[in-house]
Amino acid sequence: MSVYLAKGTRDALPEQMLRRLAVIDRLRAVFARFGFAPLDTPAFERIETLTGKYGDEGSKLIFRILKRGKGGERGECDLALRYDLTVPLARVIAMNNQLRMPFKRYQIAPVWRADRPAKGRFREFVQCDVDIVGAPGALCDAECIAVLCAGFDALGLGGRYTIKLNDRRILGAIAAAVGAEDEAALLVTIDKFDKIGREGVSRELAERGLGEAQIERLWELLQVGADNQATLASLRDALPEADAAVSTLTELLSAAAAMGADVDRIRVDPRLARGLDYYTGPVFEVVCDDVPIGSIAGGGRYDGLIGMFAGRDIPAVGCAFGLDRILVVLEELDLVPDSLDAAQVFVTVYDAASKGASMAAARELRDSGVRVELYLGEAKLNKQFRLANARNYGWIVVIGPSEVENGQIALKDMRTGEQQTCTCAEAAAIVLA
Amino acid sequence: MSVYLAKGTRDALPEQMLRRLAVIDRLRAVFARFGFAPLDTPAFERIETLTGKYGDEGSKLIFRILKRGKGGERGECDLALRYDLTVPLARVIAMNNQLRMPFKRYQIAPVWRADRPAKGRFREFVQCDVDIVGAPGALCDAECIAVLCAGFDALGLGGRYTIKLNDRRILGAIAAAVGAEDEAALLVTIDKFDKIGREGVSRELAERGLGEAQIERLWELLQVGADNQATLASLRDALPEADAAVSTLTELLSAAAAMGADVDRIRVDPRLARGLDYYTGPVFEVVCDDVPIGSIAGGGRYDGLIGMFAGRDIPAVGCAFGLDRILVVLEELDLVPDSLDAAQVFVTVYDAASKGASMAAARELRDSGVRVELYLGEAKLNKQFRLANARNYGWIVVIGPSEVENGQIALKDMRTGEQQTCTCAEAAAIVLA
Repeated sequence: MSVYLAKGTRDALPEQMLRRLAVIDRLRAVFARFGFAPLDTPAFERIETLTGKYGDEGSKLIFRILKRGKGGERGECDLALRYDLTVPLARVIAMNNQLRMPFKRYQIAPVWRADRPAKGRFREFVQCDVDIVGAPGALCDAECIAVLCAGFDALGLGGRYTIKLNDRRILGAIAAAVGAEDEAALLVTIDKFDKIGREGVSRELAERGLGEAQIERLWELLQVGADNQATLASLRDALPEADAAVSTLTELLSAAAAMGADVDRIRVDPRLARGLDYYTGPVFEVVCDDVPIGSIAGGGRYDGLIGMFAGRDIPAVGCAFGLDRILVVLEELDLVPDSLDAAQVFVTVYDAASKGASMAAARELRDSGVRVELYLGEAKLNKQFRLANARNYGWIVVIGPSEVENGQIALKDMRTGEQQTCTCAEAAAIVLA
Repeated sequence: MSVYLAKGTRDALPEQMLRRLAVIDRLRAVFARFGFAPLDTPAFERIETLTGKYGDEGSKLIFRILKRGKGGERGECDLALRYDLTVPLARVIAMNNQLRMPFKRYQIAPVWRADRPAKGRFREFVQCDVDIVGAPGALCDAECIAVLCAGFDALGLGGRYTIKLNDRRILGAIAAAVGAEDEAALLVTIDKFDKIGREGVSRELAERGLGEAQIERLWELLQVGADNQATLASLRDALPEADAAVSTLTELLSAAAAMGADVDRIRVDPRLARGLDYYTGPVFEVVCDDVPIGSIAGGGRYDGLIGMFAGRDIPAVGCAFGLDRILVVLEELDLVPDSLDAAQVFVTVYDAASKGASMAAARELRDSGVRVELYLGEAKLNKQFRLANARNYGWIVVIGPSEVENGQIALKDMRTGEQQTCTCAEAAAIVLA
């Protein structure tokens, strides 16, 4: 019988899952250190909660769930799988008046989109979102940047990433200054800068009806200075309407530094647009300097969205870590952190007579905190060794007749090939050292 | 605008989520110590993967996902949300020939069933499954029992639970011995013993057509002895056909003891049937002695199921922890473990002039490993204290003008009300002590 995965989905087999968990555990620890609390929401929402939130394109990508019973027979739907973690957060805020502001939460959970599957694009993927709801200050934006830095530092990427920083209000002022009628269309085109370069963007803008002088003026305004101060100063000079935004970014940079962010990695870049049209203030995006895979995290301020159900404006800022791309980067750089779940020792079973001793050894090692796989099958020792090797165990324990007699175990270090006879307590000390 | 959760679902707000994660983290650590590897599978499967696996009743409870595009407009479905973690495991085994046996995995993930919502019954709930695939021996069954014990011991329930143990083959032999024609129906009725007692079971059996002598013989066979040895001995005497099962349970008990299971908590009970009809050997169920909430974990051997896609028999045994009920038990007994995610210190912001010092203090405490919420809003100090109190912070830091001057912080212990002035390093040492 042939059996398949649903299109665009994948299993995380132990090897992948250990890597994923290792990254998630480290990010979780960082989020907790910054005082973000975990939140979980159901995989599906009432269909009307999601309808109209993601535009026409997004709407087509929502997985709809058939009603049970009669309605379902008529093809009616009442539920839909969550498309992101932001709309559910907005619902939680609207439904829970007792939550005090600022409310800081993280959520690490899968979302589902019926996108056309492609390399690195799946229909189920895990989002790692961190958001601060209910406070408008640059301190919040700065804390998001600080969390991004702390997260990537914890993953061993310290000094190897760049955080691009901009403010949507600066882009708005630029659009106004060049006289672009359709600000959103302008942003979409500018956002392609990394992919199609200056020439490509200019060509697309010309096609959209912008004149040569307008495009020239645009590039002047989009210039990145020698350092952040220079970029901000020239923006302030050129765009009086962007004054508030420039002040925000200035305050943000200084607060982020005070909170421990690696501000040397931040580059104010007026070309950063970010696709989503709900941003209202600072926006930021992280790229890894050594692996050209696109943004590995990003976020920004979106003061209009979280209040959609509550019926009032609620300021919010957040960022998301791109787990799949981060894993690719870490694998490429050989930086995947050790997993706290990977078993350490494989305890073989020599024969029926020594089985009890193997069980007792596994027990004692486990009681000492060692992660142990005890062989549970019926195969001979050499096949057990092959299994342990295939599973990359660092240590193998053998308890033959002489070890049983001496009350000891043989501990083999699979990296060096060395073997020693010792007690379980000694073995635990060696493995945990 | 009013907004609701989908029927039968719930959010896990931070307080609940911290508890859930605290339990999951402890179970995960136990699973890892026993050498179980994590596995993740997609939330939805192709509909034909799930069809026909859960009987008529189960089939009605599967959430079906509408096709995207034209087919969906005609009400066609191609996907369905997973109903349990066992069928996906069977699919993984069939699709991944490279996996070596015995394959031990745990999966902690939500499943979805369109059950009628009731107290404690939700349409989305987390399953914690531990399974050993590909080995038939009692050693595997024993390891499941040992994992159950280690899990509940790690949750502080040591000595407060009972593991009922039986074997499906014993029930089969009993059904044959009393001459019950419909073995499955007999099991369903016996399974109600805990709820409706001996009289209730007898009445139902009589309604099902069993004669008085048959019922009397049944109760003789279902007797629990003074201890496990006695129960097993009388089963062996009365039921020669159950000899293999009695031997399995004997070996299982001795192996479980060798692996560190608390065998004093195990009671061989021939009345334990467990509902699911796919079990083929030992079955077990855990109840908490102090909280009458029904089974909080259970499992058994099911040698016929995992091979359903692979097209051959694959032995398997597993157990599942009932996360929701375990949380109820732990709350009732005031045993919910501390969360590794809960923030520890709330750093207030005294005024604009001291804001920088508060940011720096938050940074230094975080760098020392303390979990810190820095106040990010605009409210006065007394409101900040109310917020910190509402969030149950154990420590509050205040940095006023005099602390700024001295380069120190005021650390208030919210349990004792005591306050001291110290450096950040000293504060970190106190909090982490």
